This record gives sequence, structure tokens and C-alpha cells, in this order.
Amino acid sequence: MAHPVFSVSGRSETPARVRVKARGFELVIDEPADLGGEDTAPNPVEYVLAGWVGCVNVVAHLVARDLGIEIRNLEISAQGPLNPDRLFGKPTGDRAGFRELQLDVSVDSDADEETLRTWIDQVEARCPVSDNLVQQTPTRIHVRRLTTA
Amino acid sequence: MAHPVFSVSGRSETPARVRVKARGFELVIDEPADLGGEDTAPNPVEYVLAGWVGCVNVVAHLVARDLGIEIRNLEISAQGPLNPDRLFGKPTGDRAGFRELQLDVSVDSDADEETLRTWIDQVEARCPVSDNLVQQTPTRIHVRRLTTA
Repeated sequence: MAHPVFSVSGRSETPARVRVKARGFELVIDEPADLGGEDTAPNPVEYVLAGWVGCVNVVAHLVARDLGIEIRNLEISAQGPLNPDRLFGKPTGDRAGFRELQLDVSVDSDADEETLRTWIDQVEARCPVSDNLVQQTPTRIHVRRLTTA
Repeated sequence: MAHPVFSVSGRSETPARVRVKARGFELVIDEPADLGGEDTAPNPVEYVLAGWVGCVNVVAHLVARDLGIEIRNLEISAQGPLNPDRLFGKPTGDRAGFRELQLDVSVDSDADEETLRTWIDQVEARCPVSDNLVQQTPTRIHVRRLTTA
């Protein structure tokens, strides 16, 4: 029960832009113009994809070390199709979020094919962000009133 | 099938740090020292939480407009407990990712309690990132060899 808790807190700056603090770091999230923003920063789902890429990078190196594989170079990209109709309140049979997600991993390594297959399977199984995207996670949302001057 | 595709691409800089491009924007992701990084940027799961906060901000304003609610001020924080044992390859019965997620929304608005309840329920239902965290999403991972000089 005493597991580390990760947290961020944000303040809305416009209907599409929010400034988020994560420990001592600050992140800005916005939307492109066609999604109602001013295009000053990556958008929310790009942040999620970036977190997935970042997580796979970390786990890829941990698993490689465990398997005795040398990784000389690693490139990771992530993508997915998303129908914004539900977001905008339009009638749709599609879900609100990504219908599916794809990760492309390019690795420079001498490991053979079978070892690379074992490697990527373990990366997927040990990656926290993969787990939260692939599996269900219970969420709670609390609302309180904020009184400002 | 012709839904917008969102994508990002990253290049590993260290075993914990990756530099990600999202359209014209660049994001850096790292880990704190106790998770094997150099603490130069927020970590992957903080990026996911930030994306959730950013998404809720966007949807909160869209739903408020649809319901005729004025939002004068909005603060959003997100958090969750995560046991890193599976990430590090240690024996554990816990999942790799967040066991649960909590979002705290503080709003300055004249809307009554019932309207705010309707508002937040619709925000949750229309938010793409909430959907991808709460529900399952199929993922595919492709590996290819990268040959570098």
C-alpha cells in the first residue's frame, strides 16, 4: 500500500491550454487550431504517446541489461487513430480515445531474432505505461469548488 | 477509418532519457535518480498524468459551453500509486502500471451542485485520455533492426 505516488497539478490558462507542474518541472499542453487551441505546445494525447515512448525507452534498457543484450541505438515512435466526434459531443459509435495504438521500435543490436522477440515481450510486460494503456485502470474524479478573488 | 492519426517519434539519448518530436514540438523525458535517470525532465508516467490533466481541461471547457456553464477558473491535479517492482524485474503480484488513478478538479463557477455533477460525468465520458486509461486498448509493437554507422 505504501507504493510511490506520482502526481502532477495543472492550472487552466485557456480553454485548451494548461500549465502543469511535475515535481520541479513545468509542462505546457495546448491544442492545434482545428481542435480549439492556439497550437503553442503538444496536445494531451501527444503527451500520452510521448510518455509511452519514454517508458519503453527505460524498460527496453533495463530488460536488455537483464538479458545481456547491448543496445547501441534505439528509436521509438508511437501512433494511433482517434475520432474526435465524442470529444466534441457529436453522435458517434466510436469510443472517445484511441481505438488502437501502435509502437514502432528500431534497435541497433547484435542480438539474434529470438532474443529480440524475448526482449520486446518482456518490455511490453514490464512497462508501466503499456500496462495502463492495454489494461483497465479504476479512476476516481473529485470535484470541489474553487473560490477565487 | 479515416480518423486523424496522432503520432510522436523519439530517439533514446540515455537509458532513461528520450527526446520526442510531436509535430513541430520537442519533449524531453527522463527519470529521477532513484529510477535510474539524471532527473533532467519529468518522467514517463508524469507525462501520462499531464496528458490526462490537459485533456480534462479541454473537455471541461467544451462540456461547460454545451451546458451553458461559465468556468472562471479551473485547477486539475492527477495522481496514482505505482509499484515499480515489475518494472525492475522483481517478483511481485502487483501490476506494472498505476493500480488506480485519481483526478481532483477545482472549479470556480456559479453552476449548482447537480449541474456540476452532470458536467463532470460528461467530461469523463468525452475525454479521450480518460477513455484510454479506464478502458482497454489493443496495442501492437513492431521491432525492426536499425543499422547505424
